[in-house]
Amino acid sequence: MDQVLIDVRGTAVALRQFAAERDWEQFHSPKNLVMALSGEVGELTEIFQWMTEAESHNAATALKTKDAVKAELADVAMYLIRLVDVLGVDLNVAIANKLQINAAKYPVEKSRGVSTKYDQLNKP
Amino acid sequence: MDQVLIDVRGTAVALRQFAAERDWEQFHSPKNLVMALSGEVGELTEIFQWMTEAESHNAATALKTKDAVKAELADVAMYLIRLVDVLGVDLNVAIANKLQINAAKYPVEKSRGVSTKYDQLNKP
Amino acid sequence: MDQVLIDVRGTAVALRQFAAERDWEQFHSPKNLVMALSGEVGELTEIFQWMTEAESHNAATALKTKDAVKAELADVAMYLIRLVDVLGVDLNVAIANKLQINAAKYPVEKSRGVSTKYDQLNKP
Amino acid sequence: MDQVLIDVRGTAVALRQFAAERDWEQFHSPKNLVMALSGEVGELTEIFQWMTEAESHNAATALKTKDAVKAELADVAMYLIRLVDVLGVDLNVAIANKLQINAAKYPVEKSRGVSTKYDQLNKP
Repeated sequence: MDQVLIDVRGTAVALRQFAAERDWEQFHSPKNLVMALSGEVGELTEIFQWMTEAESHNAATALKTKDAVKAELADVAMYLIRLVDVLGVDLNVAIANKLQINAAKYPVEKSRGVSTKYDQLNKP
Repeated sequence: MDQVLIDVRGTAVALRQFAAERDWEQFHSPKNLVMALSGEVGELTEIFQWMTEAESHNAATALKTKDAVKAELADVAMYLIRLVDVLGVDLNVAIANKLQINAAKYPVEKSRGVSTKYDQLNKP
Repeated sequence: MDQVLIDVRGTAVALRQFAAERDWEQFHSPKNLVMALSGEVGELTEIFQWMTEAESHNAATALKTKDAVKAELADVAMYLIRLVDVLGVDLNVAIANKLQINAAKYPVEKSRGVSTKYDQLNKP
Repeated sequence: MDQVLIDVRGTAVALRQFAAERDWEQFHSPKNLVMALSGEVGELTEIFQWMTEAESHNAATALKTKDAVKAELADVAMYLIRLVDVLGVDLNVAIANKLQINAAKYPVEKSRGVSTKYDQLNKP
């Protein structure tokens, strides 16, 4: 693969060191990290739950929500990267594979303007 | 900031193009993308829910789960990056800020081997 | 408490028996059940993620979604009740307490038509 | 159906009144309530994320976590019931149907002691 889709090595190393310094590797099983990731996505969801879709476009610039939005996005990203690192997954390869699968699942001509899931694309 | 913690531009551009070709920008409000991210984390959670912590360490190499784990991690990463892109957030800056906050919240000497949340660190 | 807010005993007994017959108690630690609950909420979320708020009002009657919506709501309810049962929590008491707390947190006169979280109610 | 599996009418009425008094029906679209439910499950998950499975059995009695566990379980239950009420779903019927489906999916003799998902039951 000649294209860099994502590079998370800097964050992975920083988080590895952060955990090691605090002797936290014992808590960072993949199962626990999936829960931690899920908890952070829950906090992100709480920020958006009462917003209209239109309002949500300004969530990262509006005075009341911008700091919280950025902090939660960072938390989600950090637990995802920590999880990927502990599991030994190459996220760049995983994303490249999934992009190929999605391109096959959702052919442009059949998917245009349709939010239906791929397995329902041809259903009446 | 002289250090690259994360670089998601390749994925962001690929997803932007993927959505544009299918006229899917209309569905990709931040609110909807938060829900899509949350749904993918739910699928990831289902893979790990009955595993022991010990088993979870092999989730990305075990024959029965490795493909699903990688696919779901990619899905989570892709919706996160799409969300970040639509919101106009610089994830590299957001993570750098959060790392600083966490380092202040969890001083090494008080956090060693303790999973307690920071606001309970000094409580009996 | 003289009022019945919720009665889940019938479901709790059915699920207890279902698990016992299959020797599934070994998998049903509260930690695992929280993950299972979270996974089902993820599936529910996926049904609603691309809907507008207006469309979502018809989700339980629209031909394309009604069966899935009911099935996922049942799944969420069942894992919640199984979790509550394994933890030994009286949900009727827990809800009564939380209703009291919420009434104090969100006084009618200050909360009318405002979706702001209680700790931000008096902020400019 | 002659058996009462679940009765949530008391809570449903209390929440309906709570929302009406605060003019909150405008925020309570099913889409938004799914997000609110998801956010509360995220908070519940955070309590359990670093616990071992063994520790999690005591989560509702341990001094440090019992109040938070009960409060979050109540929050999850309340948003679920509010959602069910707004959607007009009969949860008693939905659960009865799902119990029948599950009994067919997971026959006792094939499921004993196995956490594998039903569609993988016969796979090697």
